Amino acid sequence: MNFASDNWAGASEPVIAALAEAARRGGPAYGGDELTKAVEARFAEIFEHEVAVFLVASGTAANALGISAYARPGGIVLCHREAHINVDEAGATPLFGGGLMLRGIHGDGGKLTTEALSEALAEIPEGFIHAGQPVALSLTQLTELGTAYSPAEVAALAEVAKRRQAAVHMDGARFAGAVAALGVSPADITWRAGVDVLSFGGTKNGCIAAEAVVFFDPEHARQFGFARQRAGQGLSKNWFIAAQFDAYFRDDHWLDSARHANRMGARLAAAIRQSGKARLAVEPAANEVFAVLPCPVGERLRAAGAVYHPWSAESVPAATRPGPDEMLIRLVTSWQTSPEDVDGFAAALAAA
Amino acid sequence: MNFASDNWAGASEPVIAALAEAARRGGPAYGGDELTKAVEARFAEIFEHEVAVFLVASGTAANALGISAYARPGGIVLCHREAHINVDEAGATPLFGGGLMLRGIHGDGGKLTTEALSEALAEIPEGFIHAGQPVALSLTQLTELGTAYSPAEVAALAEVAKRRQAAVHMDGARFAGAVAALGVSPADITWRAGVDVLSFGGTKNGCIAAEAVVFFDPEHARQFGFARQRAGQGLSKNWFIAAQFDAYFRDDHWLDSARHANRMGARLAAAIRQSGKARLAVEPAANEVFAVLPCPVGERLRAAGAVYHPWSAESVPAATRPGPDEMLIRLVTSWQTSPEDVDGFAAALAAA
Amino acid sequence: MNFASDNWAGASEPVIAALAEAARRGGPAYGGDELTKAVEARFAEIFEHEVAVFLVASGTAANALGISAYARPGGIVLCHREAHINVDEAGATPLFGGGLMLRGIHGDGGKLTTEALSEALAEIPEGFIHAGQPVALSLTQLTELGTAYSPAEVAALAEVAKRRQAAVHMDGARFAGAVAALGVSPADITWRAGVDVLSFGGTKNGCIAAEAVVFFDPEHARQFGFARQRAGQGLSKNWFIAAQFDAYFRDDHWLDSARHANRMGARLAAAIRQSGKARLAVEPAANEVFAVLPCPVGERLRAAGAVYHPWSAESVPAATRPGPDEMLIRLVTSWQTSPEDVDGFAAALAAA
Amino acid sequence: MNFASDNWAGASEPVIAALAEAARRGGPAYGGDELTKAVEARFAEIFEHEVAVFLVASGTAANALGISAYARPGGIVLCHREAHINVDEAGATPLFGGGLMLRGIHGDGGKLTTEALSEALAEIPEGFIHAGQPVALSLTQLTELGTAYSPAEVAALAEVAKRRQAAVHMDGARFAGAVAALGVSPADITWRAGVDVLSFGGTKNGCIAAEAVVFFDPEHARQFGFARQRAGQGLSKNWFIAAQFDAYFRDDHWLDSARHANRMGARLAAAIRQSGKARLAVEPAANEVFAVLPCPVGERLRAAGAVYHPWSAESVPAATRPGPDEMLIRLVTSWQTSPEDVDGFAAALAAA
Repeated sequence: MNFASDNWAGASEPVIAALAEAARRGGPAYGGDELTKAVEARFAEIFEHEVAVFLVASGTAANALGISAYARPGGIVLCHREAHINVDEAGATPLFGGGLMLRGIHGDGGKLTTEALSEALAEIPEGFIHAGQPVALSLTQLTELGTAYSPAEVAALAEVAKRRQAAVHMDGARFAGAVAALGVSPADITWRAGVDVLSFGGTKNGCIAAEAVVFFDPEHARQFGFARQRAGQGLSKNWFIAAQFDAYFRDDHWLDSARHANRMGARLAAAIRQSGKARLAVEPAANEVFAVLPCPVGERLRAAGAVYHPWSAESVPAATRPGPDEMLIRLVTSWQTSPEDVDGFAAALAAA
Repeated sequence: MNFASDNWAGASEPVIAALAEAARRGGPAYGGDELTKAVEARFAEIFEHEVAVFLVASGTAANALGISAYARPGGIVLCHREAHINVDEAGATPLFGGGLMLRGIHGDGGKLTTEALSEALAEIPEGFIHAGQPVALSLTQLTELGTAYSPAEVAALAEVAKRRQAAVHMDGARFAGAVAALGVSPADITWRAGVDVLSFGGTKNGCIAAEAVVFFDPEHARQFGFARQRAGQGLSKNWFIAAQFDAYFRDDHWLDSARHANRMGARLAAAIRQSGKARLAVEPAANEVFAVLPCPVGERLRAAGAVYHPWSAESVPAATRPGPDEMLIRLVTSWQTSPEDVDGFAAALAAA
Repeated sequence: MNFASDNWAGASEPVIAALAEAARRGGPAYGGDELTKAVEARFAEIFEHEVAVFLVASGTAANALGISAYARPGGIVLCHREAHINVDEAGATPLFGGGLMLRGIHGDGGKLTTEALSEALAEIPEGFIHAGQPVALSLTQLTELGTAYSPAEVAALAEVAKRRQAAVHMDGARFAGAVAALGVSPADITWRAGVDVLSFGGTKNGCIAAEAVVFFDPEHARQFGFARQRAGQGLSKNWFIAAQFDAYFRDDHWLDSARHANRMGARLAAAIRQSGKARLAVEPAANEVFAVLPCPVGERLRAAGAVYHPWSAESVPAATRPGPDEMLIRLVTSWQTSPEDVDGFAAALAAA
Repeated sequence: MNFASDNWAGASEPVIAALAEAARRGGPAYGGDELTKAVEARFAEIFEHEVAVFLVASGTAANALGISAYARPGGIVLCHREAHINVDEAGATPLFGGGLMLRGIHGDGGKLTTEALSEALAEIPEGFIHAGQPVALSLTQLTELGTAYSPAEVAALAEVAKRRQAAVHMDGARFAGAVAALGVSPADITWRAGVDVLSFGGTKNGCIAAEAVVFFDPEHARQFGFARQRAGQGLSKNWFIAAQFDAYFRDDHWLDSARHANRMGARLAAAIRQSGKARLAVEPAANEVFAVLPCPVGERLRAAGAVYHPWSAESVPAATRPGPDEMLIRLVTSWQTSPEDVDGFAAALAAA
């Protein structure tokens, strides 16, 4: 009954096996190995597009470095108010971006609207040197509230951003979950919708530490080798990340894992809907479930062994926020979550 | 009828004379001259407190450098949503602060409340490494909407900030105007109310380029000589700024100038109140007047020679925002504004 | 016959096993797991001292972040001219240190002398704001030329640095090799000799990606949690690094591996000495061997399957530099090098 | 007898008069005034080339900002070991350049040679991500030792730099002196010789605080407005710098002042040559004279009222360095130095 986060899960057997095999072999340092080259080619296939791929060890590094490729003096990065880059990365983007500013925008259900984005851009008059300049829009897919942007939504937001010469970055820490939930191709919600650079996450979906910065226009990545190296993200045993992705992609392992996590999320949401004891704060798209429940119920769930994080009430739409004696909690399923975990939670909820 | 900004005014005669005299004399470089030492001592008298004073050439530099003295990794600077450091300095604070994050907070009439500040701080859980940490609260005095914080308001906000180990910075680009408007001593609205570091501005009130970073605890300034020098703000002919402040402080010239500007502001506000053609969006405290008027009236004023800046409607409280065919404008008086300027505007408004 | 680098080796079986086991288990994110706590305690035992330990994924990150804890405005980091931080990390220390300057100092055999350090410090007059200020001395142990500083040498250099308020950092990418070569305790060449912060490397000695920043005064590390997180080095599955170190330290595995690598280095050096075809450019202390040989010999070795890197002639003392038709090469042994590898090289050299 | 520095001089009467006049007038802020536009046009005339000109308040800012326009990740700026940017600006270039590295190169007489530059570049293998990449060569004209690069020397160095995609920056804090000394046109030693961006200094030659960043390809300056503003160098009363340059350029005032300073330098050098008590350490090209004299002579000169700075012996060629009881001193003349000042020094030297 551990729903704390999908990054509490271990690694899947295929990933462990691939890693162990690569570790027994060793090989040329800093990405000069064959496995790295093979994985880079695999990314191009998956995205049906020429890409420049750089493996890194953390999602924070992927986000901050990916965005930094678009840094300009006075640069402003627009994102959702609760975006990971804005409130959970301790300022990585300003650091790697040489002083970039983050501008958080409100949006219900974790999603930005073109209206809100346009308003935020309007507050940065074009060419007005005092205000700085928009350099990137960062979208989180899945969002921090477990919802997903459709290809059309991404495209509409990207269009608004690009009118102002801002690049489009996608924080795909849970990209597999989004692809699985939306039933679209990876290309559809990235470059075909206007995304320039993607943080492609494997860590939350069965890898150990495997993230990739994927540029859809290799020209944008011309300086990125230097940028990654000076960020301490150019690992000597780079094959260690490549091996994880190799297993991750083989036989659609990545999508199978994500689909499983999403099914467990749906099962959990159904249990909550039917419980009569709690309600959903947001309609979940994938593996993150936000529920409102009476505080005593929450405590009894904990006592029964459920692990979860309380969440800030501000995150969810006003209409669904917890009342005076209620709390908002986040429950995350993963590739490791079993139906029994979910059913156990459901039973504990029923009993609470 | 030029009300564009108080930084469009020239320099006052005493300032020009002092500058010319110092320029004829020259002297030791980088603040080794007697005038600099005298002016530093004068700051201590004016603030009735030991101070460490560093002269710089611009308000942006004063703000960003002053705040940077409190930078820590993951540091967040809290300020009003429309604070100059947040929207008008092109990211100087993130640059000089090595990646500091700015977090703008909404507040009616340009002023933060303790409630809003507490809420913003609550979103940065103490010791939560992902969120970063509050390192400074920056208050603008006069605010961007021409209002002023009372000593009690500053003290209350400072107390909230300091509970979270955040330093208190005051952007005093219009500090003289605030002192004159509030009728308080400089000490009352700074260190006695909990301010750690002040950007003390002379440029908008009759100087040419004269700003000072004033630390009320010299211990905080131990690294500041290096910080100022590497920022390109340690001028070789530092006496050039000292000479301006020397004249500025002599015989209360600074307060006389500010009082004049404030009187002109009040005269302008009265004219608007009585015009029947326009209304005040905010009750002005000093030399900045925000008025709402029908768009055609605004155009006729311009045609009659009035110079002013249109302003973002979002800046003013919802209740006083311009309607569909109205516009919000900012009018700024200065030490150079004459009663005739104001009366000319009043007449043009009456005729519009 | 692969002597390219010790970072081309794979990972040892105990490390792979520990990693696989931890990966099957998973656990609390961001270092909240038991393994991380156990490993932190183990560091304290090994160093016989209270320590603050932070696991990171790369040596570059360990170096740049560790040093950044001592950053001050105008800060200068003194190091050997060929130190990894100076010429092989693409500016990581300036980036993480918010603009720190690197000042490379010449020193024969990869080692700094107190005389050269004193001279370099003398060029930064104390308190002279234009020059900046020394904030750290960084020593590499083993050095870039495969030599080792004795405890007395470290202590003497540290004393010179501390007279100028500079912290002492040790780049211990090959720390195990140094401990093994010198036959001293880890404490002897670190805190007992004046080292404040150590980059403790496991990657080159049988781990996959396991580095630690070790502060010997936890007070110095008060801000480091934030610093690591914003650098993208606070990994969610931090247990992945902890598991490697757990195996690394168990039953002196780390020292056994280093001793083996050093023995192979000595065997290689002996083969070169006796070959009559090549000579040693520097007397090796551990697992790095720098040899000078005629260019045709180098080519025949390559043809015979030897893998090595040519090295810059400037690195070695003038007296031992390659002549007109000679080349300098670096040969690195590792825990994975077999006596047969070395003997194969010796035979190829004899035949060349 | 004050030869401390040319930045100890005051401002010339034409500069003071122009400044006073502009200060009485005031005008649009942030460079929107007519004077700024006129001065920008004047720069284009003087350099016989389209230019993008940005006025700033200090030479350190001009250098660091100008160079920052060419910053790339892992960027290395090559310069003379004693260049102002390397040892006298407290790390401004690393700060404004987002972590740029400075690489000081030895060169006799304050001048770099193409051989030394080529060697330094060879140590940064092309495309080798660990080493970083050269982004700029910075030449000081006049050099820190008062010598001058000929147009051919600049061109030769620029060619070497550009083969490696490094931009060429010229620190022209004493540019007027160089133009006067070399008898060349401003164009000849800048863009015609391959210079991309020039820090054009007025402060040391009769202005108060007037420096300009001059880009010879306006495309390079596309982001510079933002960069200057966030550096706190976009002054609201920008006309204050423009007014100084307006007077500076009128009727060749700048060149007249520089020629005078150079004549005084030559007179001083002649006096030293003929004194029998001291010798020149470097043949002066303009207004900086480096002399070696017995320590007691130096003390007696001081007692007689001479003001000068002792200088580091390392700066001058080995052959002319001070012996055991000798000292190296720097004497700087300026537009304000009178023949009587020089003759007084000569007399004091004779008497010493």
